[in-house]
Amino acid sequence: MKKMISLLMSLTLMLSLFAPVASANTKKDQDAKDKSVHVQIVLFDGFDLLDALAPYEVFAAAGMYSGGKVTVELVSAEGKRSVPSGLNGPSLEAQGVIDPVRSGIIVVPGASGKPAGKSEDSIPNILKQAKDTALTSMMKQALNNKEVTVVTVCGGSLVLAMGGLLKDRYAVTNQIGMGALGALGAIPVDARIVEDTPRLVTPGGVTSGLDVALYLVEREVGPQIANAIEKLFEYERRGTVWQATGIAPIHFEADQPRQGQ
Amino acid sequence: MKKMISLLMSLTLMLSLFAPVASANTKKDQDAKDKSVHVQIVLFDGFDLLDALAPYEVFAAAGMYSGGKVTVELVSAEGKRSVPSGLNGPSLEAQGVIDPVRSGIIVVPGASGKPAGKSEDSIPNILKQAKDTALTSMMKQALNNKEVTVVTVCGGSLVLAMGGLLKDRYAVTNQIGMGALGALGAIPVDARIVEDTPRLVTPGGVTSGLDVALYLVEREVGPQIANAIEKLFEYERRGTVWQATGIAPIHFEADQPRQGQ
Repeated sequence: MKKMISLLMSLTLMLSLFAPVASANTKKDQDAKDKSVHVQIVLFDGFDLLDALAPYEVFAAAGMYSGGKVTVELVSAEGKRSVPSGLNGPSLEAQGVIDPVRSGIIVVPGASGKPAGKSEDSIPNILKQAKDTALTSMMKQALNNKEVTVVTVCGGSLVLAMGGLLKDRYAVTNQIGMGALGALGAIPVDARIVEDTPRLVTPGGVTSGLDVALYLVEREVGPQIANAIEKLFEYERRGTVWQATGIAPIHFEADQPRQGQ
Repeated sequence: MKKMISLLMSLTLMLSLFAPVASANTKKDQDAKDKSVHVQIVLFDGFDLLDALAPYEVFAAAGMYSGGKVTVELVSAEGKRSVPSGLNGPSLEAQGVIDPVRSGIIVVPGASGKPAGKSEDSIPNILKQAKDTALTSMMKQALNNKEVTVVTVCGGSLVLAMGGLLKDRYAVTNQIGMGALGALGAIPVDARIVEDTPRLVTPGGVTSGLDVALYLVEREVGPQIANAIEKLFEYERRGTVWQATGIAPIHFEADQPRQGQ
């Protein structure tokens, strides 16, 4: 009998130890299930189709698999209008104006055009023109809003950097733009995806838009939806998400400029 | 002196052996440089954005890097019109009608929608509706034309198979459609890209549109352009292109139905 009581007490102790963990997990799961995420994909004249539409399609699939917990729309700084993509590509219809105070995710794509030079259809020129629109002040507002995650794809981080919005922030862009990103005051990090803070996430070139969208789907609504999308799209997310945490690797290439920290 | 003559004769023999190869290579290079390739990307109601636009953007970049040797346009069976993508996604403007006798490449994308079921917005239903348009007879004409390479992406091979155009042809589609592809008379092969003949090339699900376009850029205008696009897009082509040549692997899974041959 004494043995039985002792066993029961041990069991009670064990349960009391485990119960808070179990209930915390359940609460987290419930929060994830109650949550809904709205994604705004920004279009500007000369935007790159894949930069904008690869994340669009990942988030749209997340909406389908979650029964509408994720919603996505195309927006522009000027509101509803037909926005031409770069390299004389097709236009897409922006459904409304960027709302920098709406909680959720705002994605800024890069441009498509000649990778270098100063011609009208060069990427540097198209990005500069985008920077000179109302987009910059709207993104400044978004970056100051704790309810908004700002995401770029490819040259999108250069648009923000040109607008002075990435000063001393960790970021990445297409490999061909890494020098410019540093010159504009950001701290370039050579990773597929860089998470400066949970509110500012930048990936590398064009196709890394798939990876950053899959990462954010996992972060916001969980790994099961992200995994289902990977199977449907026949694509597996690539690369470690770089964050300024943990042990920094020893820097062996003494002759090279240091990146990140 | 005798030695010298002997050496000269050896040299002459060597040159005569190597010269035809060198001149063949030069001719091949010249042919590639003179060649231009026109790509038609087909749109139909409910098409999948990435299926259509990932190849579009790869071919557009090939045009940029080759100084216009590759051209690409969006077309539809009905001609110039605004074509809505699936899952209530954005519309794209088809610039003209499919020309099944124009030499070059024609790409048929798949649909985006619910992956299964019979609802109006299910992928099987959207593909069937595409099959019931003039697209099927046009693609039949294209498949009979030796100047045209027919390419599908994802469910695009199912549109052709539903129309009876892939009878006994090697093909692949999205993993979720492989059973249907076999039931429709094609020979399903589980590879990232399947080249039935140089005139019919099918890749797997959504993102394999990047791979098939990079493969065709290499095949049509050479590896240097394909490599430049890979660097710009930060993506490396995946998977061996399956062809019914060489040694077939021993089939160890005796209980499984054989695929391919």
